[in-house]
Amino acid sequence: MSISKERFDGRGYDECRPISIEPGFMPNAEGSALVKLGNTHVICTATVSTDVPRWMRGRGTGWVTAEYGMLPRSTDERIDRHRAANSGRSREIERLIGRSLRAVTDMSALGEYAITVDCDVLRADGGTRTASITGGYVALAQAIESIQTERSDATHILIDSVSAISVGIVDNQCILDLPYEEDSRAEVDMNIVMTGSGDYVEVQGTAEGAPFSSSRLTEMLELARIGCKEMNRAQQRALSISTAWDD
Amino acid sequence: MSISKERFDGRGYDECRPISIEPGFMPNAEGSALVKLGNTHVICTATVSTDVPRWMRGRGTGWVTAEYGMLPRSTDERIDRHRAANSGRSREIERLIGRSLRAVTDMSALGEYAITVDCDVLRADGGTRTASITGGYVALAQAIESIQTERSDATHILIDSVSAISVGIVDNQCILDLPYEEDSRAEVDMNIVMTGSGDYVEVQGTAEGAPFSSSRLTEMLELARIGCKEMNRAQQRALSISTAWDD
Amino acid sequence: MSISKERFDGRGYDECRPISIEPGFMPNAEGSALVKLGNTHVICTATVSTDVPRWMRGRGTGWVTAEYGMLPRSTDERIDRHRAANSGRSREIERLIGRSLRAVTDMSALGEYAITVDCDVLRADGGTRTASITGGYVALAQAIESIQTERSDATHILIDSVSAISVGIVDNQCILDLPYEEDSRAEVDMNIVMTGSGDYVEVQGTAEGAPFSSSRLTEMLELARIGCKEMNRAQQRALSISTAWDD
Amino acid sequence: MSISKERFDGRGYDECRPISIEPGFMPNAEGSALVKLGNTHVICTATVSTDVPRWMRGRGTGWVTAEYGMLPRSTDERIDRHRAANSGRSREIERLIGRSLRAVTDMSALGEYAITVDCDVLRADGGTRTASITGGYVALAQAIESIQTERSDATHILIDSVSAISVGIVDNQCILDLPYEEDSRAEVDMNIVMTGSGDYVEVQGTAEGAPFSSSRLTEMLELARIGCKEMNRAQQRALSISTAWDD
Amino acid sequence: MSISKERFDGRGYDECRPISIEPGFMPNAEGSALVKLGNTHVICTATVSTDVPRWMRGRGTGWVTAEYGMLPRSTDERIDRHRAANSGRSREIERLIGRSLRAVTDMSALGEYAITVDCDVLRADGGTRTASITGGYVALAQAIESIQTERSDATHILIDSVSAISVGIVDNQCILDLPYEEDSRAEVDMNIVMTGSGDYVEVQGTAEGAPFSSSRLTEMLELARIGCKEMNRAQQRALSISTAWDD
Amino acid sequence: MSISKERFDGRGYDECRPISIEPGFMPNAEGSALVKLGNTHVICTATVSTDVPRWMRGRGTGWVTAEYGMLPRSTDERIDRHRAANSGRSREIERLIGRSLRAVTDMSALGEYAITVDCDVLRADGGTRTASITGGYVALAQAIESIQTERSDATHILIDSVSAISVGIVDNQCILDLPYEEDSRAEVDMNIVMTGSGDYVEVQGTAEGAPFSSSRLTEMLELARIGCKEMNRAQQRALSISTAWDD
Repeated sequence: MSISKERFDGRGYDECRPISIEPGFMPNAEGSALVKLGNTHVICTATVSTDVPRWMRGRGTGWVTAEYGMLPRSTDERIDRHRAANSGRSREIERLIGRSLRAVTDMSALGEYAITVDCDVLRADGGTRTASITGGYVALAQAIESIQTERSDATHILIDSVSAISVGIVDNQCILDLPYEEDSRAEVDMNIVMTGSGDYVEVQGTAEGAPFSSSRLTEMLELARIGCKEMNRAQQRALSISTAWDD
Repeated sequence: MSISKERFDGRGYDECRPISIEPGFMPNAEGSALVKLGNTHVICTATVSTDVPRWMRGRGTGWVTAEYGMLPRSTDERIDRHRAANSGRSREIERLIGRSLRAVTDMSALGEYAITVDCDVLRADGGTRTASITGGYVALAQAIESIQTERSDATHILIDSVSAISVGIVDNQCILDLPYEEDSRAEVDMNIVMTGSGDYVEVQGTAEGAPFSSSRLTEMLELARIGCKEMNRAQQRALSISTAWDD
Repeated sequence: MSISKERFDGRGYDECRPISIEPGFMPNAEGSALVKLGNTHVICTATVSTDVPRWMRGRGTGWVTAEYGMLPRSTDERIDRHRAANSGRSREIERLIGRSLRAVTDMSALGEYAITVDCDVLRADGGTRTASITGGYVALAQAIESIQTERSDATHILIDSVSAISVGIVDNQCILDLPYEEDSRAEVDMNIVMTGSGDYVEVQGTAEGAPFSSSRLTEMLELARIGCKEMNRAQQRALSISTAWDD
Repeated sequence: MSISKERFDGRGYDECRPISIEPGFMPNAEGSALVKLGNTHVICTATVSTDVPRWMRGRGTGWVTAEYGMLPRSTDERIDRHRAANSGRSREIERLIGRSLRAVTDMSALGEYAITVDCDVLRADGGTRTASITGGYVALAQAIESIQTERSDATHILIDSVSAISVGIVDNQCILDLPYEEDSRAEVDMNIVMTGSGDYVEVQGTAEGAPFSSSRLTEMLELARIGCKEMNRAQQRALSISTAWDD
Repeated sequence: MSISKERFDGRGYDECRPISIEPGFMPNAEGSALVKLGNTHVICTATVSTDVPRWMRGRGTGWVTAEYGMLPRSTDERIDRHRAANSGRSREIERLIGRSLRAVTDMSALGEYAITVDCDVLRADGGTRTASITGGYVALAQAIESIQTERSDATHILIDSVSAISVGIVDNQCILDLPYEEDSRAEVDMNIVMTGSGDYVEVQGTAEGAPFSSSRLTEMLELARIGCKEMNRAQQRALSISTAWDD
Repeated sequence: MSISKERFDGRGYDECRPISIEPGFMPNAEGSALVKLGNTHVICTATVSTDVPRWMRGRGTGWVTAEYGMLPRSTDERIDRHRAANSGRSREIERLIGRSLRAVTDMSALGEYAITVDCDVLRADGGTRTASITGGYVALAQAIESIQTERSDATHILIDSVSAISVGIVDNQCILDLPYEEDSRAEVDMNIVMTGSGDYVEVQGTAEGAPFSSSRLTEMLELARIGCKEMNRAQQRALSISTAWDD
């Protein structure tokens, strides 16, 4: 895919913003990472508990769930602390993050542990949910390692890695990784969650303005593949491990 | 696409359940329909109000929003009335229905009217959110007609029609329109919202079990196109209009 | 009682609106009925559960409770879904329905079952609470029959039948079964719940305008007796049983 | 009505408990009374405000509403403060008190004033709702007098007085004014609200155990008439006025 | 400390308002007192329960907690019943009362009993929280005596007595026990909780207007000592006991 | 004050933990600071709004308020996100921070601006409320400077600076600035808020174990003075200004 026209921040249409993942940012937690995707900064923290939900006790399997919050001044306009926490949007994002992380976790291998991944947004500039998934995976991986350190029989709990990125259509052009400036005027907004081996976990595309054709969908999915691979590399660097990505 | 193996209810993998849409089911309302997609029955009701949300007063544009509810015994196990009403799942579905209906409505042409589309599930057997969109469009179209009857200048408020269907992967096979029996054990669950002219409004796919490949995604999107077209025909019959669907 | 002057809908002052009860309307439930009293339509559904409230476990006795809801557009003006569900009026009606149904149920004979009767109003045109009791009894009777089919020793759980009707004073005239048009301007509004054998379960009369004399109370109670008997006959038809009503 | 058998507290079946009403108990308020009906003690307080509800502004008419609360240890078992305040039972009682007081108030004569009558139970021994109405009327009458003192044109706001009492059937015997010991095992529980001139404002009878016959209803209504007259006399003493009661 | 200038109600700057404590005001409760500090009247009620919080079961130790409420018309302007109950101010006061009472209770000697002290304000004229502590102690002491009557081994549960008073700076003058008239315009508002033996349990001083110097703090603490001693004497009279106060 | 015995972390009894204040941590906000007091880290953010509370509109004066939150994993045990946000403890801390900041702000000079200071705890190791005040002042000062930059007439809005520190008694020894390890077993816990010129804004001392004597109170107040002065110096460094502190 060759794109000539530049974006407002100088990126090409198939380029992600700079990504960095600082593991261990919250030293009290079993796993944590500060993920920075451009000006979107999210603290991801994984807590391991043996207090699994009532409905799954005694089954020998575990659970991974996520919570999502925003600091009141993570955005340009201050957000009401309590309204934000109870909003439908927050619940929807929490469910997305939780499903994405569970897709790469073998619940039987995990055993009766409940892992909660908290994603708290310090600064929001578009893509907070995808950054949360990308950083949440790093926190989860650390937390699972801490379980494996304790239990020698706990192996292969993580089946794969998982990362996410946004794509969209702005000014009739498909682009990768939208900051707020582009996201707020996008005709189509799409979030893609992929495994490290290149399969889809979630595909969520929404026409905010005009509906989109089948060929545009294909184009956006290709951009997303580039972005998820880039995110995956940043996860590997953070975890200092080398999992295979099948080019 | 040639599919030989039959499904538990005798349908082929590319067949929808029987669809019927009874318009005018709630005579008090400006628009309404009882939609039956197999054993999934939803009452869709559109209410027109001049009481637009505070933030959009004086702009001359309107708004379309949706609410979703389930009767406690719409499912096999009784659902708690209050917990259901406040669940994240309900909020998420409401947002999806609202976005879908707004995608085909010209808010400037609508003028300062707020239309609320209530989708109340009488019986739930999978696909309640897609049936709500399909039936909600019929209720919306009637309500908009009632506005146009009053205001001669209100034309072309509806840009297109919109319908939805579910697709998924069960037993490693892509299938169209999943009832509960299939939905509950699906590896992938996907909801597609399309306009009458065949463009995408929403693409929401989730790997419940194993992540899915790019070719599987393509296969599911093709099934969805067949289903949405079928839903669109039922809408046309209900509204006794003949809008074009571009084969 | 001979009344000459006719009402706005052509009925005599001692006549009920047309009543029909369609049993089995919600096939998932242990008991159900769609009751139509003129333009007031209510879905009544009975759910049997072995999950009795904590405070009655181990006593060998059961419980019957009711919940009441209105679809947002059951009335001419749309009702806010969440405000309605939590209103004092809804709670008060639920308590009335529950007491009425418990009055004809032998809790010891029932055994440790909890039965929840959901009354959901599709269309509201006055008398929703009395229609809920009349229809709720049919749903309850079916649900209890389903218990008796399973447990041969469960006999005589229902002691009697129960039905209800509204009476009131409009334009200084006592009338039977008030639709909204009359109810909204009634000087007195009264709901009577009676057993099939003609005893009172509930007597609830309220002076909305002028207080009422003792002789007016007597007159209204006589009208109510006519109405409850009529409702009882409709219940018998629905259940295809012939219980005695003592003239 | 002559009744020989005595009750557990030595009263005849047609006797009320000792009643006393201490006006002006809450000196900050426009009207107030401490009503003691045996061991049931309720503080009734009327607050006058010019801040009428939004929906009635500019109509020149007023409104009377009531709120009801119980001190946590007004009963033998401590009641949870927050659960009690939000219970359906409290809402139902508030609505009953409000309706009863409005029945004797001419809203047009009142003008644009909102009067809130707070009924707070210090000790509960049965009959708290009827005592609240009886005492609430005294507080209301004082508050209205304070309005009339300010506005010379505000006359005849109170059309009549209103009081209330409970009756019931215990051990197959109709009795007047039930304390908790009798109320808790009553077969029928009934609350009657009457005007000073002897008409009904509310008639609320409930079969807690066996349904009741028409003749039993008549018997209870006669007892209630005796009781309400007794309450009315106590109100007159408290207000030091002599309104007529038509024997 | 000699102060010449008189206060608006004739008191000297080092004088408390008249204090009276009527024990046993709520006869249903294990302990209770009506405390009157000038026009501030609070009902304090202690409830003993064996239902200790879950987290302390099986430890053999008890717990003392407090709840605080205001009757809607305890103040000049009526307070919203539900808003008040959930306000941050109420929670803060409850926590203060609870801590103060726990400071003089030996939880091991108490054993597995939970004591709840309800403080309900009939009239509020400044100093409701300190009056609640002073009266709450009397209710607590009675409740503990009732436990000791039952269990011969339960001795020395109360280590000391506890009372409280407010001090402040008004018109640049340190004063003792502020009613609303002074409290509302105080530059500094301070609440002191002391044991009967003269040690501090709580010191809470707040500059509402100008911050205060170290010497002013000393002056206020001396006034508070006078006041707490006075409150302690009233407690002793109420409990008819003579504990030592070390002058 | 000379103290020889060392504390668990090597500090003397009159020494604060290392303090650092990083201004401008949240670049979207009008004022912000990341304050680190040992292992207690708090993000303080000040938002300026012209949307003052309804009750103060048109008076020409402003308002300063505070909100306080904790990230779920700021502590060793994960805190429930929603329970924490609504806890009485959070409300109490918010009120303390708000009062402290208002004590040094001239509301008339501020004009009709509302400033909200959000204090969000990243890591909690004792002293979060005092660190919030110390850092909140820096955020507030920056926000006020941004107002003064816009309005030339807005001068002298800040009357003084304000900082806070905790003191307490552990092992019968008065100590300064308690981390969690000491705080959790302190006999007395005290928070002192002082202005830069050395006057008290808040004095809050609580006997968690044994009540404390007058001389102990004096000793703690002296330690607090040392600590607040130290905090004040860190504020000055952060703001690069040199306000006088009167030794």
